[in-house]
Formats: sequence, C-alpha cells, structure tokens
Amino acid sequence: MDLVKIELSEKEMPTRWYNVTPDMPVPMSPPLHPGTLQPVGPDDLAPLFPMSLIMQEVSQDRYIDIPEELQQIFRMWRPSPLFRAHRLEKALDTPAKIYYKYEGGSPAGSHKLNTAVAQAFYNKQEGIARLTTETGAGQWGSALALGCQFFGLELKVYMVKVSYHQKPYRRILMETWGAGVVASPSQDTNAGRQVLAQDAENPGSLGTAISEAVEDAATHEDTHYSLGSVLNHVLLHQTVIGQEARLQMEKAGDYPDIIVGCIGGGSNFAGLLLPFIPDKVSGKNVRIICAEPEACPSLTKGLYRYDFGDTVGLTPLLKMYTLGHTFTPPRIHAGGLRYHGMAPIICHLYDQKLIEATAVHQNATFEAAVSFARSEGIVPAPEPAHALRVAMDEALKCRESGEKKTILVGLSGHGHFDLGAYEEYLSGNLPDYSYPWELVEEALTHVPQVPEK
Amino acid sequence: MDLVKIELSEKEMPTRWYNVTPDMPVPMSPPLHPGTLQPVGPDDLAPLFPMSLIMQEVSQDRYIDIPEELQQIFRMWRPSPLFRAHRLEKALDTPAKIYYKYEGGSPAGSHKLNTAVAQAFYNKQEGIARLTTETGAGQWGSALALGCQFFGLELKVYMVKVSYHQKPYRRILMETWGAGVVASPSQDTNAGRQVLAQDAENPGSLGTAISEAVEDAATHEDTHYSLGSVLNHVLLHQTVIGQEARLQMEKAGDYPDIIVGCIGGGSNFAGLLLPFIPDKVSGKNVRIICAEPEACPSLTKGLYRYDFGDTVGLTPLLKMYTLGHTFTPPRIHAGGLRYHGMAPIICHLYDQKLIEATAVHQNATFEAAVSFARSEGIVPAPEPAHALRVAMDEALKCRESGEKKTILVGLSGHGHFDLGAYEEYLSGNLPDYSYPWELVEEALTHVPQVPEK
Repeated sequence: MDLVKIELSEKEMPTRWYNVTPDMPVPMSPPLHPGTLQPVGPDDLAPLFPMSLIMQEVSQDRYIDIPEELQQIFRMWRPSPLFRAHRLEKALDTPAKIYYKYEGGSPAGSHKLNTAVAQAFYNKQEGIARLTTETGAGQWGSALALGCQFFGLELKVYMVKVSYHQKPYRRILMETWGAGVVASPSQDTNAGRQVLAQDAENPGSLGTAISEAVEDAATHEDTHYSLGSVLNHVLLHQTVIGQEARLQMEKAGDYPDIIVGCIGGGSNFAGLLLPFIPDKVSGKNVRIICAEPEACPSLTKGLYRYDFGDTVGLTPLLKMYTLGHTFTPPRIHAGGLRYHGMAPIICHLYDQKLIEATAVHQNATFEAAVSFARSEGIVPAPEPAHALRVAMDEALKCRESGEKKTILVGLSGHGHFDLGAYEEYLSGNLPDYSYPWELVEEALTHVPQVPEK
Repeated sequence: MDLVKIELSEKEMPTRWYNVTPDMPVPMSPPLHPGTLQPVGPDDLAPLFPMSLIMQEVSQDRYIDIPEELQQIFRMWRPSPLFRAHRLEKALDTPAKIYYKYEGGSPAGSHKLNTAVAQAFYNKQEGIARLTTETGAGQWGSALALGCQFFGLELKVYMVKVSYHQKPYRRILMETWGAGVVASPSQDTNAGRQVLAQDAENPGSLGTAISEAVEDAATHEDTHYSLGSVLNHVLLHQTVIGQEARLQMEKAGDYPDIIVGCIGGGSNFAGLLLPFIPDKVSGKNVRIICAEPEACPSLTKGLYRYDFGDTVGLTPLLKMYTLGHTFTPPRIHAGGLRYHGMAPIICHLYDQKLIEATAVHQNATFEAAVSFARSEGIVPAPEPAHALRVAMDEALKCRESGEKKTILVGLSGHGHFDLGAYEEYLSGNLPDYSYPWELVEEALTHVPQVPEK
C-alpha cells in the first residue's frame, strides 16, 4: 500500500523555533519610528508587547528554545500531518508528486493557534491579565481566544462590524472559548467613537479595529496587544511547520523541487518555507513560490518601501512591499489575504530573489479548492486555495513536460466556516476582481517618504 | 512531559472488522418480514443493498477482512487519535483519568465516513452507479457524499426540508463533494408528491425522507439505498474505532473502568464499545454507559419490541428498544440522537445487561461541551456532548470518592456546523425538553403486535 500520511511522533516535534535572521545573506532594514525615522528600540514596543516577545522580534540567535509548557500544549494538535496527495495526482493525471502539510487539524482550524498560544504564554509569564486584538473574518481572533483560555487570560476582540454581523459563526466560536467580542467601530474607544461620530453606519475596517485594540491596550495597565502575522516573532512561532515538514519529507525519502504557500501577512507560508532557506542560500535547487490574490497583489504589484503596518498610521514603519496603507482591497473571500503590506522577512527574501511570487484570481482558486476537496476530502479555506491553485498549475505543467517534480504545498486551514463562498462558486456567482490599480495608485501617494540610506 | 496524544502508525491500523455476533452469550432475534412475520432473507434485501453488505449483515464470522483499497482510503484520516484530557481533568479537579477517542478529524468531521466509504466501495464493486440516502441535519449525507465521490458514484440525498433551509452549510458541503441534494418532501417521488398533495408546506421528516430515498432506489435499476446507522453491517464498519482504542489504551499502559458514548442509531458508540465486549462477557470489570437525550430516551424509557425502522413502515421489523416508529422527538440540536429506535445489537447488549444507559438534558450537555472546549480546545458536536456530560459526571463522582478511575469517552465529531446551538446555550436561550411521555404513549400504540416465540 502507498504511504498516505507521513506522521511524526511527539518525540520528533521541534523543541526550538528557527530564526532566519542570522542566515540572511544581506541584513534586513530595521523598523523605524514614524516621528524620528530612527530604528525603534525595545522600549518603544514595551507598552504593547512583553519583553520576551520583543527580544524574539530582534533576536540574532538561529534557534530559540520552545518552553516545555508550550510544547506540552502543542502536542494537542502537533506534529501536524504531511499528506501525499495520491488521489489528487491521479485526478490531475500528473507525474508530479504532491505533498501537503495540513494545519487545519488544530482546534482553531488553522496555523494561527501556533503563535496564539505562544503569545498568550509569554504575556501571562510577565503578569499580563488581559489581551486585545483585532480580527476580520475571525480566524485570528478565534485562535487567540483559545490561546488566552489555555492561560487564563482575558481577551477582548475588536471584530470588523460587517463580519461581526455577516459571519456569526467565528464570533460564536470566540465566545465559546470565553473571549469578549465587540463590533468595531465600537463605543468602547476614542478611535471607535470618532469614527461613529462621523458615520454612525460605518461598516468597520481592519485598520479601525487595529486602532481600537491598540488604544485599549495602551490605556489599560494590565493589558497588552497581540498581532497574528507580519512581525518577526509571529513568523518565528510558525517555523514548527517547516521544521516538521523537512523531517517528514526526509522520512518520505523525498525533497521538494517546489514549495508553495499563500501569503496575506506572510506568517503561514513563512512557517513552512523559512526552515528551507538555508538550503536555498547554499545553492540548493528549490523554487519557493508565494501565491497571492490578484485583488491584493502586494509582492507582484506593490512597491518596496517603508510604510505603516496599519491603516490609521499608529505602528512603526516597516520596510515592505506595500499597496499603500490606506488601500482597501476588494471583498474577496480569502479575508486573510486582504492586507496592504507583507511581513518584512518575506519581503526581504523576495527582494533578494530567494523566493518568487505569483497572483491568482478568485474563481481559479475555488476551482482548485473544489477539485482538491473531491480528491483529498479536506475542504480548504479560501486562503490556502490560492496555494493549491499554483501547486496544481505546476503539477499540470509536469503533465505537459513529463517531469516528475516534487511539490510541497502549505494547507494552512479548513474551510468549514467559508461554505457560503463555496456556494457562490458552485452556483457561478463568484466575482473575480481585477487588480484595482487606480485605488492602489492613489493609496501609494500616501506612503510616507523615507530617505533611503 | 505528559503524554497527550496516543498515536498509532498506519501499520498498526486494524485490517479486519470485528463482528460481535458470534461472541453474544445469547443469540439475537432476527429481523422479520412485516407481512409474513418470518425472518427476512438476503433476497428480501437485494433490491436495496449489495450482496456483500447483506452477507456482512448476517455474518457469524468473528472477523471480516477490510479490503486493501479501503484501508488505503482510511489512511487519510485513520488511525484516529486517542487523547488524554489532562487539562479537563485539572479543570474538574478530579483524580480520574479521562481519555477521549476523537473521530472529528476525518474530512467529513465525524465517524460516519468510516461506513460511508465502505458502503460506496461495495456498491461500486457490484456495478451500482448511483446511491440514494436520507439525511436530517446533513452529517450522514455529507459523509456519504464524500464516500461516493471517492468511488465515482452518483449520489442523491433527500434532506429534511426544514434542515435544508435552516442549515445550508452541510448542504453546501454535500454539493462541494458532488452530491445532488433535494429538499424532502420533493416532487421527485410518489411518496414526496403524496405528502405535498396533502400539505404543500410540509416541513419534512426523516421518515418521509427515508421513504423517498428507498422508493428512488427501488424504482431505478442501477441504484441502491444506503443507511448511516442501526444495521449490523454499519456497526461492523465502525469497529475500527474500538480496535484502535484498545491498542491505544494498551500503549498508554491503561484499561478503562468506564466507557461512555452517545447513542442515536447506535453506530458511533457501537464502534467504540463492541471490541471490548469479549472482555466484558468473560467477566472483566468494565462499565459501558450509553448516553442518550432525555428528549428521546429509547433505551431508558422505550419498550423492547419488534418495530419498524422508519416512520412510514417500509422496513423489516427490528427487535429493539423503541419509542414507537411514529414518535417525533422534540427539536433538540443533537439531530443524530433523534431516532425512535436503536441498533438491534445495542438493544440486545442492553437487554443482556452487558451495557448500561442514562439520559441527560440538553443544557447539561452544552455546559459539558463548553467546559470541554475551553479545556481541550475541540468544540464537540451536540451528540457527543451527551457522552462528555456523563463522562464528566463520573469524573466528578471520583472527586468525591477519591477513586482514580480510568474513563474512556467517544468523541464522535466536531461541532463546527452547530455553533448556532452554542450561541443559544451561551445566551441562556436553550430549552430543555422533558421526556414527552404522552406522545410516546400514543406512538407505542402503533407498534406492531408480534407474538413472542
């Protein structure tokens, strides 16, 4: 019988996170204080994050130990399985071998829980009693709700109002795990009240929700703020994925010619690809492809500039490929990919040509997702459906060329809360959104001018 | 670090199903033809089922080999994990050890897929091109949709109309996996048209949906009918669960003092408990407790009589604990437990006092489910929440008595499509339904009179 699942035992789980920074051939540009345009120091971040996470953010150590207490919790859903997609290969009639690393088996249904529990842990350790965060469709908010529940932390989630009302299931999930959820803009913060004063019917945005969560954390003594992607320490926590995948590929007696993942803020795919970077740097012939939406193509169409991480302009300036921090992407179902910027680590690797990027349209991603679901059973979330589209395209190229390439794809979560989107696709009512270049052109004019050194 | 997950490798997966029939101390009463009151033979069932499944239904062999092709497919989600519920034990402050066997990791989200793929396989093998089935909330229909997709079979699902409209997600899931779904009563069958002629607004019932699915299969040459619980061969297919659990408990160096599962038609808990029956028969001190809803207490309040399996009276007569085949249980959220009867195998074991039963109220089950979700992460389906309630009550008794009992509980599926019910519970709006004895008394008058031999 063919090997279907490449499992690891609990004993083979990574005990350290892998930090790519010291392995970068060229050093990264530091985050800057928007007032002084000087690199931000640990003290600038201290009101929002615990010092242990700030130290991880700036660490130059190649490995950082995972505390035993966290390893114990990871064991509830890790090591995650690596599957060989035999049935999909057959359906595509391709000589390519397709493997997928599946993070949807975590209780929260995605990779987000890996960093959520770590962030809750370190905040608890420093005596913090309460966290705040923002969430769009609720993927990140629900993961952090469970993370906080595990450590007895209170959590307040500012959920974009339109999602709060249209997608109640993830809100209920957060409440089931004990979090308080409020529709943003809310009456609970100055930022929210300001927005509502101008427009009582404002549907909310991730930008406003971030402003509310940050203000809440900054104005409460025992409260910190938590972010689900973009920052170095968040990507670091996800490297358990790629470390496991490397070992699993080795057990399968294989090594990827191509690694594919989807990118929104960048944390899921970074988790998979970063542990392969040392090989790539040392000349190994592996292509690493980022899949992003045509509706929000940060890497393929954005500018590599210093820009704000949020819409309102509260965060430090990050050097990244950006569509402009005021850009609001079209309403694709892959809510997790609707971000104007990108994790600086991903951007730096892209700028250094260590990784590639390609953009795909919404209908093509759902076509891939349905085809995957019918072959492999798992119904993918709309975000990793982008990665599946690119992986399947590469496999179809192998059918043409006859090449037996090995493709490793990151399947970051399940689509159980996205079936409305599947219905739209199946009934032929799913729109594609062209690259909104006029909006992006406009947004790019608001990117701050930072003199290059 | 403590052991959290007791994993098995693919090599340790069961290669045979376990058939309890030859190990029964007293033989079971056979199904009867409702016209002749004589035992039904294989030929009576041939219009609806393939001969291989009929042979399994009546088999006296202790073990039946699982075809390699099926084992290969099982490997996509099996062996399923056995978890030690450390965090729950701590939350309950109990000296008891709680283990749970989790079937929610299958792509269909429950144990149902174990028999769905097996039934699709055998039908395909006998040249059947198309299956029909009924579904309530959609748990079984979605599992069979995926099973049929794996073997290229067409599937038509008659879905109870009120669920079709109120719970669209599982319908979309079935469609994503390629099944045709129609609201029942439908215009597609005589049974459906009759019901609609009398009442155009009829909301449908499982009874009517069964009638439609059976009629469809009986009147199409290339079509068979498929059932998701109750019958011997369905329970047989689920015994992979208990075989794995036995081995996993052994690996954990433990043996259960108490085994708990929820029962609706009986297949999920039968899958877990049947492989422990030989121990029980030979005098081993293990309590096996069935958890059923107060709103539909077949074992604890029903009569042990021959009755129809469906509401309309089309099926053979089965000897079972029944509330009367015309009884319509209150609308509890655990749709899978709303069945008037019970698998004859479960009933026989209960009658022989090899297993026990207890009934619990809806709010108590959701209280247990939320407590479980906050400790262990996984959000349980409303059905296994009944088992968790009973398991947690046993663990709380251990807190009183100081006993260190080992409790094994079956967690048959996740509650991702049941969050509306969680919201009702969290907001204090979930009703409890008392045992509707007047309705049951009435229904019991319709149970056929079959002379005891």
